Amino acid sequence: MKIRLLLSYKGTHFFGWQKQSRQRTVQGEIEKILFQLFKRKISLVGSGRTDAGAHALGQTAHFELEEGLKNIDLKKALNSLLPFDISVLDCWKAPLEFHARFSAKKKSYRYFIFTGDSPPALFRDLVWWKKGDLDLEKLNKMSQELIGTKDFKSFQSAGSDVKNTVRTIYESRWIKMSNSLYCYKITGSGFLKQMVRNLVGTYIGLLKEKRANQKLKQILKALDRRKALSLVPSQGLYLKKVFYSSSLDKICYKI
Amino acid sequence: MKIRLLLSYKGTHFFGWQKQSRQRTVQGEIEKILFQLFKRKISLVGSGRTDAGAHALGQTAHFELEEGLKNIDLKKALNSLLPFDISVLDCWKAPLEFHARFSAKKKSYRYFIFTGDSPPALFRDLVWWKKGDLDLEKLNKMSQELIGTKDFKSFQSAGSDVKNTVRTIYESRWIKMSNSLYCYKITGSGFLKQMVRNLVGTYIGLLKEKRANQKLKQILKALDRRKALSLVPSQGLYLKKVFYSSSLDKICYKI
Repeated sequence: MKIRLLLSYKGTHFFGWQKQSRQRTVQGEIEKILFQLFKRKISLVGSGRTDAGAHALGQTAHFELEEGLKNIDLKKALNSLLPFDISVLDCWKAPLEFHARFSAKKKSYRYFIFTGDSPPALFRDLVWWKKGDLDLEKLNKMSQELIGTKDFKSFQSAGSDVKNTVRTIYESRWIKMSNSLYCYKITGSGFLKQMVRNLVGTYIGLLKEKRANQKLKQILKALDRRKALSLVPSQGLYLKKVFYSSSLDKICYKI
Repeated sequence: MKIRLLLSYKGTHFFGWQKQSRQRTVQGEIEKILFQLFKRKISLVGSGRTDAGAHALGQTAHFELEEGLKNIDLKKALNSLLPFDISVLDCWKAPLEFHARFSAKKKSYRYFIFTGDSPPALFRDLVWWKKGDLDLEKLNKMSQELIGTKDFKSFQSAGSDVKNTVRTIYESRWIKMSNSLYCYKITGSGFLKQMVRNLVGTYIGLLKEKRANQKLKQILKALDRRKALSLVPSQGLYLKKVFYSSSLDKICYKI
């Protein structure tokens, strides 16, 4: 049987999602617990990687279980065994065709910027601290330029072997959450390596420029990472949700 | 000259406010930085202690400075030297009669409970996780019983040398912040040792009782700590604000 998991984690003390031999990673920690629970090696497949330090409000993953669940309350068992910075929000029995990565249709990310003039002592790991108010209108004009199907090669960091850099962006907007907290919301068919962090860094960098919109368009058109501005830190980044087709969601059963 | 500070800190990695010889404390860390900055021993006086693990959104403290500030931008200097989990929100030049502890008129605390059925991976240090919805109406009926001037001896933890246990409570109410986040707000003339944590533990414990209100009144009247229910963990507790008289506030000048 196939098990689908909805996960939340705080990325601060992980070297990202993907398993590495000597580092603490989300995939590695969960696989350790699955081994403990089922007494054999189980591979966990995520919807995609997340960067070291980046968080998840709703990452999706799956694994296969030959023998079935027996009488285990899986969510409860996992949450009682997992470390404090990983949480299982939901478990489903999924059809065999479900694949956390290949079945994913869309993803949503959030990026949080705290703009107060004193450091956010309580939330240092959970936001990017950048002093000074942001021009929300200007940010939203730029972020609107992304909507649609475009080649985002300029916003892909080096070290990726992805060849097709065309993606569709459905939602791209900034909101002011409170006096000194801003949030960027982006939803797309998929994302390139460090794309959200590269995008946010470019928006913020262009804020001080005239004709920022035009410049953003030029950067997009250049299809060249060296044209984009430097990326923002990972601690402000959250994988919010991974979307699957509703027909597939319908044949996943909560357990 | 006297300097007044407004501080925020994340209590997780502190053994509380008060300096101890071998433990990391908020007072101890700030005094270390003051020594570094002014090259001499400076005593920091807080409005009161906070428990190990408890947080501050607005703690007030003061210190004296014989030589004046010269050209130091104090807030900037402190924030650049202080560790990541302490933040200076504001600095004032205060009159000599200002005393962080003795001049305090009121204090506000918050206590946050997360009631979702999965652990809050992103906020484990910042809330108390207790599964299951809370009866807000019942909580608020109980919390109303506290309003006024009463003897709170039943809610004072052992190990305190405070003799007068009469305090005035001005505000005492529960609010639901979101689907699974509850907040208790309490404002009073002063608080006894672990009083807020003892109170919240008693409310929560009494939720399953009939005539919870009557029982709370009986506990109050008993003037006996053994009658109150067990206290809740410190990680949900926040010192929100310390209030001083407006006439004193008026003669503090932001620097």
